[in-house]
Amino acid sequence: MGSTTETKNRIREFGETNLINIVRNIVGSTEDNDVEYMYIDGITLAMKIDGLSLTTSKMPFMTHFDMGWKVMASVVSDFLAKLTKPLYAVVSITMRGDDTIGDFRELIRGLGSGANYFGMRYLGGDLNEGADDVIDVAAIGKPMTRPIGRKPRIGDVLVTKPLFGYTGLVFKLYYSNELDRWKDVETVMKGIEILKRPEPEVGILNDLLKHADCISASMDSSDGLGKVLWTMATNGKVRIRVYGLPINDDLLSSLAEIPGVKLEEVVFNGGEEFLPVFSVREDCVAKFRDLGFVDFARIEEGNGVYFNDSPLKFRGWDYFTGWTG
Amino acid sequence: MGSTTETKNRIREFGETNLINIVRNIVGSTEDNDVEYMYIDGITLAMKIDGLSLTTSKMPFMTHFDMGWKVMASVVSDFLAKLTKPLYAVVSITMRGDDTIGDFRELIRGLGSGANYFGMRYLGGDLNEGADDVIDVAAIGKPMTRPIGRKPRIGDVLVTKPLFGYTGLVFKLYYSNELDRWKDVETVMKGIEILKRPEPEVGILNDLLKHADCISASMDSSDGLGKVLWTMATNGKVRIRVYGLPINDDLLSSLAEIPGVKLEEVVFNGGEEFLPVFSVREDCVAKFRDLGFVDFARIEEGNGVYFNDSPLKFRGWDYFTGWTG
Repeated sequence: MGSTTETKNRIREFGETNLINIVRNIVGSTEDNDVEYMYIDGITLAMKIDGLSLTTSKMPFMTHFDMGWKVMASVVSDFLAKLTKPLYAVVSITMRGDDTIGDFRELIRGLGSGANYFGMRYLGGDLNEGADDVIDVAAIGKPMTRPIGRKPRIGDVLVTKPLFGYTGLVFKLYYSNELDRWKDVETVMKGIEILKRPEPEVGILNDLLKHADCISASMDSSDGLGKVLWTMATNGKVRIRVYGLPINDDLLSSLAEIPGVKLEEVVFNGGEEFLPVFSVREDCVAKFRDLGFVDFARIEEGNGVYFNDSPLKFRGWDYFTGWTG
Repeated sequence: MGSTTETKNRIREFGETNLINIVRNIVGSTEDNDVEYMYIDGITLAMKIDGLSLTTSKMPFMTHFDMGWKVMASVVSDFLAKLTKPLYAVVSITMRGDDTIGDFRELIRGLGSGANYFGMRYLGGDLNEGADDVIDVAAIGKPMTRPIGRKPRIGDVLVTKPLFGYTGLVFKLYYSNELDRWKDVETVMKGIEILKRPEPEVGILNDLLKHADCISASMDSSDGLGKVLWTMATNGKVRIRVYGLPINDDLLSSLAEIPGVKLEEVVFNGGEEFLPVFSVREDCVAKFRDLGFVDFARIEEGNGVYFNDSPLKFRGWDYFTGWTG
């Protein structure tokens, strides 16, 4: 017994998804979604809180400015997936006492520039001392349509931007200590740029709104495409059959150059692409193609996620346990 | 040069107030207040984010349940000072991987019970792994009056509940390693209880609303009464003359028993009492007395904070530098 029991009792063994279920059971909160909807005085608002710890999230090529920008981008990305206009943000910052003022200033500049770029007002917040640097951004947005959940409709098609794989490629090279060797390859550089300064396309919100009726469900891809697919399949009690990969040719030719990297892994288990995935009526696909989206999966009766007739083994990113295979 | 320059460059040397000014300068945000007001579709809302790190905030007598409760209480306390009804909360939690599931559950139970007790819906949130446990709560409330700032009107009187000193006494004993010796004294027990389970009186909101016209400014006391007074004096460009202490007889007799504890220090430099301080018209004082408030200071032309004709030396709690003397 002893140490085994001890270890099993640690958060690390449980994984983020199980921990979130513990929260849901205790708090009795409603269905999980990328944003939380609220109803005040007859109007519907959306709220989102998203955070990161510099100890676990800041990769060597990222600056404090990047981290501030990135956490702003992460809330905006969730809003975009729900056709919600970002309005106001507040930020709680925990810093270590021996952090430098220069880093602190850069972090704030990143937060401020990010908020500005995405059209949000950064109103202020809280500041505390701790044993890690933690940045939590909470934001309020105005949903421009009825609330959108995570349960796709049978017969629908999934669409997203064909920009998966870049961040997955960087993660893969980084964790196998090969990033330095390949860092001048254009797709790797693009992956690093996305990780440093993600730019959810708030500019397409008005165009998306024209086709809001097409959408039955949506998710942001920040924990990886595999996580999106498994979550949608489970929540919607449907089967998702993937028939293509949402990637472009640059990525394909790059992977041919770099040995030991599997295409499916970097596409499904990446994360932090901050791309929206929409489940849309089949007759709407052309409209989304006009906005630069590609279709890549179909919603069927059944359960699970299938790719090339086999269950999809990649499940995306889970804090505490890492990638879930 | 060398190490001196290095040290001066650290956040710890700057103090929370200076860091907040750095944020304000970069972000260009408006005047500082206990809550941030937002205007959406013609309605006014208030938003607040408040956080704590368990490493720097959890005292030995506090449980994880207490910490969850406490951070919910801290946002509610800010809302109460602004006559704002708390409505919805989201929480971002950063945990260390080797924390136990039991502690995690207790933290969530504390957050859930706190939200419930104060009449807020805890909607969900984010969960990340880090090198410290950090809990950030963001909440939305509905202001029941026009926005209330921090600039008291000349001629006004400050009122608050006569419950200062309890938490200051516990902090003082704790930092001088004497808490164990005095922990069975009733006022010390009460101080510990306030620190573990603060209970901002949301129940008096409706009564306060009847006298909303009396109020020119307000602040929550979470960083200590000294901080409230200096902030109001500075923001309002007024002099505050303190003519009494907002305490009750129990505290006084207790302090007579415990040697080496200065009354003014525990009253002005405590913090975490989570009591509202209102600046009200002089002719309104009787109405606030009926609700259990006491008056203790007067707003005059001039600047600074005076107590017994001398500038008040206690300035309350400042993260990174500790108490500011």
